[in-house]
Order: sequence, then C-alpha cells, then structure tokens
Amino acid sequence: MALIYVSSWSDGDLWRKALVPLLPGEELRVWPDTGDVTEIDCALAWRPPFGSLAKLPNLKLIANLGAGVDYLMQDPDLPRGVPIVRLVDPLMTEQMTEYVVLAVMTGLRRLRDYLDLQREGTWVEIERDVHPPSQRTVGILGMGELGRDAARKLKAIGYRVQGWSRSPKRIRGIPCAHGRERMVDFVGACDALVCLLPLTPETTGILNRDLFGAMKPGAYLVNAARGGHLVDADLLAALESGHLSGAFLDVFHTEPLPAGHPFWTHPKVTVTPHIAALTLPAMIGGIVDNYRRMQAGQPLLNVIDLAQGY
Amino acid sequence: MALIYVSSWSDGDLWRKALVPLLPGEELRVWPDTGDVTEIDCALAWRPPFGSLAKLPNLKLIANLGAGVDYLMQDPDLPRGVPIVRLVDPLMTEQMTEYVVLAVMTGLRRLRDYLDLQREGTWVEIERDVHPPSQRTVGILGMGELGRDAARKLKAIGYRVQGWSRSPKRIRGIPCAHGRERMVDFVGACDALVCLLPLTPETTGILNRDLFGAMKPGAYLVNAARGGHLVDADLLAALESGHLSGAFLDVFHTEPLPAGHPFWTHPKVTVTPHIAALTLPAMIGGIVDNYRRMQAGQPLLNVIDLAQGY
Repeated sequence: MALIYVSSWSDGDLWRKALVPLLPGEELRVWPDTGDVTEIDCALAWRPPFGSLAKLPNLKLIANLGAGVDYLMQDPDLPRGVPIVRLVDPLMTEQMTEYVVLAVMTGLRRLRDYLDLQREGTWVEIERDVHPPSQRTVGILGMGELGRDAARKLKAIGYRVQGWSRSPKRIRGIPCAHGRERMVDFVGACDALVCLLPLTPETTGILNRDLFGAMKPGAYLVNAARGGHLVDADLLAALESGHLSGAFLDVFHTEPLPAGHPFWTHPKVTVTPHIAALTLPAMIGGIVDNYRRMQAGQPLLNVIDLAQGY
Repeated sequence: MALIYVSSWSDGDLWRKALVPLLPGEELRVWPDTGDVTEIDCALAWRPPFGSLAKLPNLKLIANLGAGVDYLMQDPDLPRGVPIVRLVDPLMTEQMTEYVVLAVMTGLRRLRDYLDLQREGTWVEIERDVHPPSQRTVGILGMGELGRDAARKLKAIGYRVQGWSRSPKRIRGIPCAHGRERMVDFVGACDALVCLLPLTPETTGILNRDLFGAMKPGAYLVNAARGGHLVDADLLAALESGHLSGAFLDVFHTEPLPAGHPFWTHPKVTVTPHIAALTLPAMIGGIVDNYRRMQAGQPLLNVIDLAQGY
C-alpha cells in the first residue's frame, strides 16, 4: 500500500523529508501523481483540492495536517465512512498559546498605542488606570486542546481566566460556561476575549454585533481560529464606536487578506498572516502513529466527529 | 510624631488619599511643608530632592515608594543609620512580569516586523524557522523578587528559562548561574535576555558591547530595570551589525527619553515610557506595616542593604 500527500497549498517537500525516515518501506506519493489509486490507503491532506480524496477508492485514513478541518468539511465529495484524524501536537499548541498570550497582552497593555506614541516621539504614560493581571479577566471561546492550554498558561501568568464551549467541560481551576444562552454573561465579564473555536455551521459568524454589544466597554478581541467566525463589518463598527478597544487577528475570510481590506490600515487592528501556530514536519509523529494504528486495526487518536464537524 | 511625603516627582495626592484611612490619628505632611521637622519620624520618598531627608533630624524610617533605590542612593546627604525599606508588592511584581512576557514575546514572535508588514499591506510569513517556546531560552539577569516571578511565569508558558545574579540563588526548576565569570556562558545560551538587576556601581553599564558580543546571533534584549544598565551606543552598534535582532526598553539614562535620541526612531527598538510596573497607592499596605513595625520596635521588611546598594 502507499500514502499520498494531497494539498493545494504546498508541494509537501518538507513533509516528505520528515516522513520517509519514519515510514521505512512505505511508498509516499504526491498528488496529482497518484500512480495506481487502488494502492493508496492513507491521504495526508492539507487543503486538498475538492474531489481529490474521492478519487482514492481504498482510502482507510485521512490525516489532516493541521488542527482545523473546516476546509476539508466543505468538500462536497469528501469520502464518507473514511475516518479523519487531525494533527494535534504539543509544538503546535505551544505556538498557539504563545501567540494568544502575546495578543492578549498587546491589547491589555496597549502596546499599539505606545508604538504610536513612539512614532510621534511622545513620552506619556497612557494607563492612569492600572490593572495588574489579577484584576483582568480573559475569556476563551473554545476549550479544546488549544483553548485549555491557553487558559492554563494565562492563569499561570496571573489573569482571571474563564472558558466557554458548546458542550460542558470541567477544567481544574478554570470556570467553564457552555451553551449559547450563557454567552452574553460570559463575554460581559471579559477584558480580553480569545476565539479558539472550531469553525462549524454553528460557530460561523459567532463574533458578531450581538456578541460585541454584550462585551465590556473597552474590551479587546483576539481571533486565532478562523476568519469565518468573525463578521468583519460588525467588528469595524464596534471599533469605530469605541466600544471595543482593538483586535488582534490572525485569520480572515479570504487569505491572504485582500489588498484594500479595512483591517490592513485600521489603527486598532493588528493583522498577522495566519502564523499563530505553524504546522511543522517535526510534528508528524502523531500522524505516523495513527497510520500504524490503522494498519494494526487499533483505535485511532484525534478522530473528527463528522456530525459535529470537528 | 508625623510622616512626610517627599518627592520631586508628584504631589502625593493619591498617596495621601490611600494612606490617611490606614493611619488614623497620624499626621501626614507633604514636602516642602515640613512644619516642625523634629516631629517627623518617617519619610515616604520617591525621588526626593537631594538633601531633603538630611533636614529631618528624628527620622527613624525611610520608605522608598518603588522597588529601585538607585536614585535615593545618589543623594550625597542621605542620612546614615536610618533604615531604608522599599516598596515590594505583588501587584507591582505582576505588572512587571506581564511587561516582561509581552516584551520577550514581541521579540521572539517578531511582532514589530509583522506590524511593519501590515503597514505595507504585505501578507508574508516571516518565520520559516519556527521555534515553539520549548525550543527557546530566556535568560533573566537579576533574580530578586521581580526576576524570580518573571522566570517562573515564563517557564509556565513553556520557555526554557535560566537566571543569573551576583550571588548564588536556588530557585526550584530554574537553573541559576552567578558571578561575572559565568556571564559569557550564560548570555550565550539566550534567545531573549531580560535585565531586572538593581542599579549599583557594579551593574552600571553591564549591558555593553562585551555582553552583546557574547550573546547568540539574533538574540533579543529587554531592559525593564534602569537606563544606567545599558550602554546605548553599544546597543545601537549591536543592532546595526545585525548581531542582536531588537530591543524592548522601558528605562533610559534620561527620562523622559530626550527628543532626537536614536532609540525613538530605530525600527528594531521599542520604547515605552517607564510604564512596566507602576506603583499604585493600593500597594501602600507594606509601607504602613513597616511603619507600625518601626513604632513597635519590630524587625522591618524589605530593608535595603546599604553596602550592596539594593
């Protein structure tokens, strides 16, 4: 049997170099050079072209080379009945938490304002109203692997941290709310709100005017999940009115963020080019492990629930 | 007896409001309105005019309203034999650690470069060579109250953290080096180096070309201690040559940082106006406690060792 790397995104060179030594004797192909499609039992997918996976009749495992499977889920010809696993790796989680902490602190410590003052050559202390971390509440939307790690580390720094998710979660030391009906209360308590939700039909557009309206005046928004969570125009309105103090965004409806999009030049918006947590070939261990499990008929890890979409 | 607030910096209004309810029955004066100087047994000092404390003949306690006593130490007429205590408060430590984490992450995640790219409207991933926190070493110079807290929290985030100080320290989970002869090895291992040292004759100019030369190529410098630690021209040279990747500075030889100083406009230098950790009237508890201890003849806390200068 053989594995195939399928991506509309990159040529997979780095992945192949990392995989070959870990899979001695296995053949690793690269889409569109499928060879005999009946020999392929595993696809390593990162934004695969729609319909590509449907052309592999003996697929027994689809391994998504990232945490979010929203792109995969949009493929109308996604093979049903083939288990999908996603890449979950401590090195990715670490990067994401580092990004989230940087983004939260940039907002709470008003770094962009200080950089503007530096550009003007003005020496002035902005925060007359000083709030050390123990007087600040950070809320995390989405308490999966990434949300939990960010929550724990923000708490270790000294912030008051609370989590929100679709279904109930119990996490030691972190108060967790769940369900849409708790959302207004939840976001109303946050000085900074971080979105780390999976993108599903249920969470699309969840960062909208209703949610912003329920937020504390002066609160800060971080989106490191997917552009589809955010209603761009609603954020711009909330910044314009002064209700929100700023936003730190890594993800966008269209990536690269199109030239001329108002986020590029908005003084209260920080734009990063989807670099919060990069998938590295060094993170391939879990994928190799899942491939071995599939071959041995053992239970897979980090399996996607198709009904929930993540 | 009476207390007096002595500062060349602010009028002490906020401090007085915080102190009065905590010291019922005590008289609180404000320099230069000393009244009968023989009645004053405690000075609350923040950058007091040189010679002012020498005019108070019955002083039994000098309380420095900040962590650093370097300014006080420069007063040639500082009364000898009067114990000096400094303000140490968890709310100040929290702020400092928040600032240090933000500064370290700004450097390691290349936030300034991303902001420059945003300004140009350029979508490009800079860090092809991704290093999650567990692959980064952060070094702290100065392992007092502030250094220890920053070290512990940086470690909780996932960084490799090491500390350096003048005298030996043992801190659980943080390798600590000490003494000048260990400094070259110490800084050579750091991807980010944070100065939280007290300013003494021994540490003045410690951030100089020799130290920068011993640092890893591409390392990042954070100075949240005192401007006197840094040789400005040496930092500029290390940035110009590309040996250091950038610096995040809160403190300067002259504050406000003079107009025209090259730090203001240097693209690799972030300047903040000495806001890392602001002393708040809410932090007055330890000072009141020390005043009561002095009155009762009990041992004082957070006492300065005049021989060491901190």
